[in-house]
Amino acid sequence: MSKKSIGIGLMGLGVIGGQVASVLSAKAEALAEQAGCPLVLRKVKVLPQDLARPWAQKMARGLFTTDIEEFFAEPEIDIVVEAIGGVSPALEYLTRALASGRHAVTSNKELIAKHGAELMKLAGRQGVGLRYEASVGGGIPLISRFQYDLVANKIGGIYAIINGTTNYILTRMEREGVDFSSALARAQELGYAEPNPENDVEGIDSTYKLAILASLAFHTEVSPDDIYREGISKLTSRDFQYAQELGFAIKLLAIAKDNDREIEVRVHPVFLPEDSLLAKVDGVYNAVLVEGDLVDKVLFFGQGAGPLPTSSAVVADIVASAREIRLGVVAGSGWRLGPARVIKPMSDVITRYYLRLNIADRPGVLAQIARVLGEHQISISSAIQELADPVAETAEIVVITHSAQEKNMQSALSELGKLTVVKEIGNFIRVEA
Amino acid sequence: MSKKSIGIGLMGLGVIGGQVASVLSAKAEALAEQAGCPLVLRKVKVLPQDLARPWAQKMARGLFTTDIEEFFAEPEIDIVVEAIGGVSPALEYLTRALASGRHAVTSNKELIAKHGAELMKLAGRQGVGLRYEASVGGGIPLISRFQYDLVANKIGGIYAIINGTTNYILTRMEREGVDFSSALARAQELGYAEPNPENDVEGIDSTYKLAILASLAFHTEVSPDDIYREGISKLTSRDFQYAQELGFAIKLLAIAKDNDREIEVRVHPVFLPEDSLLAKVDGVYNAVLVEGDLVDKVLFFGQGAGPLPTSSAVVADIVASAREIRLGVVAGSGWRLGPARVIKPMSDVITRYYLRLNIADRPGVLAQIARVLGEHQISISSAIQELADPVAETAEIVVITHSAQEKNMQSALSELGKLTVVKEIGNFIRVEA
Repeated sequence: MSKKSIGIGLMGLGVIGGQVASVLSAKAEALAEQAGCPLVLRKVKVLPQDLARPWAQKMARGLFTTDIEEFFAEPEIDIVVEAIGGVSPALEYLTRALASGRHAVTSNKELIAKHGAELMKLAGRQGVGLRYEASVGGGIPLISRFQYDLVANKIGGIYAIINGTTNYILTRMEREGVDFSSALARAQELGYAEPNPENDVEGIDSTYKLAILASLAFHTEVSPDDIYREGISKLTSRDFQYAQELGFAIKLLAIAKDNDREIEVRVHPVFLPEDSLLAKVDGVYNAVLVEGDLVDKVLFFGQGAGPLPTSSAVVADIVASAREIRLGVVAGSGWRLGPARVIKPMSDVITRYYLRLNIADRPGVLAQIARVLGEHQISISSAIQELADPVAETAEIVVITHSAQEKNMQSALSELGKLTVVKEIGNFIRVEA
Repeated sequence: MSKKSIGIGLMGLGVIGGQVASVLSAKAEALAEQAGCPLVLRKVKVLPQDLARPWAQKMARGLFTTDIEEFFAEPEIDIVVEAIGGVSPALEYLTRALASGRHAVTSNKELIAKHGAELMKLAGRQGVGLRYEASVGGGIPLISRFQYDLVANKIGGIYAIINGTTNYILTRMEREGVDFSSALARAQELGYAEPNPENDVEGIDSTYKLAILASLAFHTEVSPDDIYREGISKLTSRDFQYAQELGFAIKLLAIAKDNDREIEVRVHPVFLPEDSLLAKVDGVYNAVLVEGDLVDKVLFFGQGAGPLPTSSAVVADIVASAREIRLGVVAGSGWRLGPARVIKPMSDVITRYYLRLNIADRPGVLAQIARVLGEHQISISSAIQELADPVAETAEIVVITHSAQEKNMQSALSELGKLTVVKEIGNFIRVEA
């Protein structure tokens, strides 16, 4: 197909959609050279309130429609860009775009994590492309790595900091010694966290992204519901003090492993050795470490969110789609889903643990704790006891264990909680090497 | 074109060629699924001595030929993989492969750096692909980033640790306080450095790789000869002591910048702030930091050499070529070279500097040094004086400057060398932020 131009239909004119429109306009010449022909924005599906946005002021009013029927009636749209977010109505609109034979590009992690498999199948049947590079890691090139660069590898593990909001909060807690709520408040002031921060701080956003990465890496459909999840809201400044003392950073890590028999997928805070690369990823930055049998470790780092980095990935996907349209071929989504895999139950997961206990300040307490842990096949790697409160006659004890099974640790915790010398289980956090 | 299989011709059966052959065989089924049809090794051009290599013992003898005519006479070769290295005869063979209408894959950085533009043109005329992902950064996905993921970006800078041998040597010097020659000897023992290490330690290898990255990033032909180059052999354990004291790591950095008017390309040791990500890249690992106007900073990290990571990139290129052959299209090399660009002369480059001088241990020396620097528009950020030798009545002074122009620093150095109080200019190293 030799086309004079490729038409773009944009759904959504929020910060991402607005930035994509701005890049398409400001870089029209360079993008035309990359794509092989001009990329022309033909129609923008907006909400009435979008028309007041500053970037909308710079665009031709004739591009806008609030009517989805009018949007799809535009005959010159070859590529539909979905920048609405969430599942509804994005799923309906994207399905309709693919069903009408248009290529599609989206940055919608929730949509791809929950409905990626069905959308890919539809795209395949329709002979069009569906691209979603921006759905994980913003501008960091990630998705295509699994589809192209790493295809010769058996992927054994993914270790990812893929939520900038939580990483920003954890960085402030570490550097400034503040507690979770004040770090969160600061993140909200700066616009890094939503007024309702649950999606980020409870790790939900990370499970969407991990589901996408794990599905790609392991060639099986991994749903967000398959992923064990803990957020960062229970972390205290005390945990950060001990982490620093012991040579660790605390990060919210998304972990996926494949041991051939089963796959392991989980999102929770971890202690990471402070000299590891992931421990150095601070602020709103993201990083994804991938282990493959040939490449060993590769790591991708960058800004995981924000309109500019996200537009970089969305526009790259538009250019790739345009090249396919021009060449008249579709390389396929690369979402090669094989049979369902067994997900390892969290109770079977093996890690080391950090354990912080408030205890009665009297002799022999560590011995009692060690006995309970030992009875559950958990051995102690190191222990420190400090911060005694002479008035309350309490102290704090921190234990780092050797590798142990989660179910043994949970049983031990339950039993520790019953000891009269244990006032409170302050926290327990998994330790990754 | 609907093919039952894609034929591979492999030139060279050294460690890289041997590993590629091994992956094609061991992962035949998974690769066939990725490529859309089986990838079959049809012929291997070997040297007589290759036949004794352990991996050659496992391969069918009928695959081997020492005769390049016999290699090219094999009709079932669709993709030629060049794993010979160096320019001659690799250039001749690769040219012949492309001229005969075969797609080509190479890991040969010297060849691509010196002859990439002409080879890409030939591939374009022949309507075949020429891929070279493994030429820079081993298994780290890099080359395709500029051709796909970052296409919407104006690339402003590249900061790269792209030679594992020198990074290994520098890491040992930093950690163990040993001098260059003993760290080199250890690298040679371990096989990380060649018996003749010049290509690595003098930065030549890094200039090949930087030439490729800069050509891709800036859309102009950058030759290795355009690149200012200094190696690591003049670094001493003294420099590492001061670096640590001042909060810096020392790395051999390949730097490319584009300020729109001119481009700046250089390879030399630098002081990097110890809390920067690149400063944390230790041992044989490589990392490439790319700055784009949309993505801000992205960093790619991994093993930059070695047969396994290199085979990951070579086989990914083979799969990508096979997909193109199957689809009957060629996306093009992405090596879009625009007009020649002005290369900034090294004398115009502006950086901060670390300066180590052996001086006479008497009052007023720092004042004299500061005067000379000041006369050349160089101001001092910090200075330390120590290690006085009471017998020889000498001391050492170390200065970190503010930003200054290279030509001013060179004039100042020349004048400092003439001061009677300056016994020797110990070293001077550029400081990057």
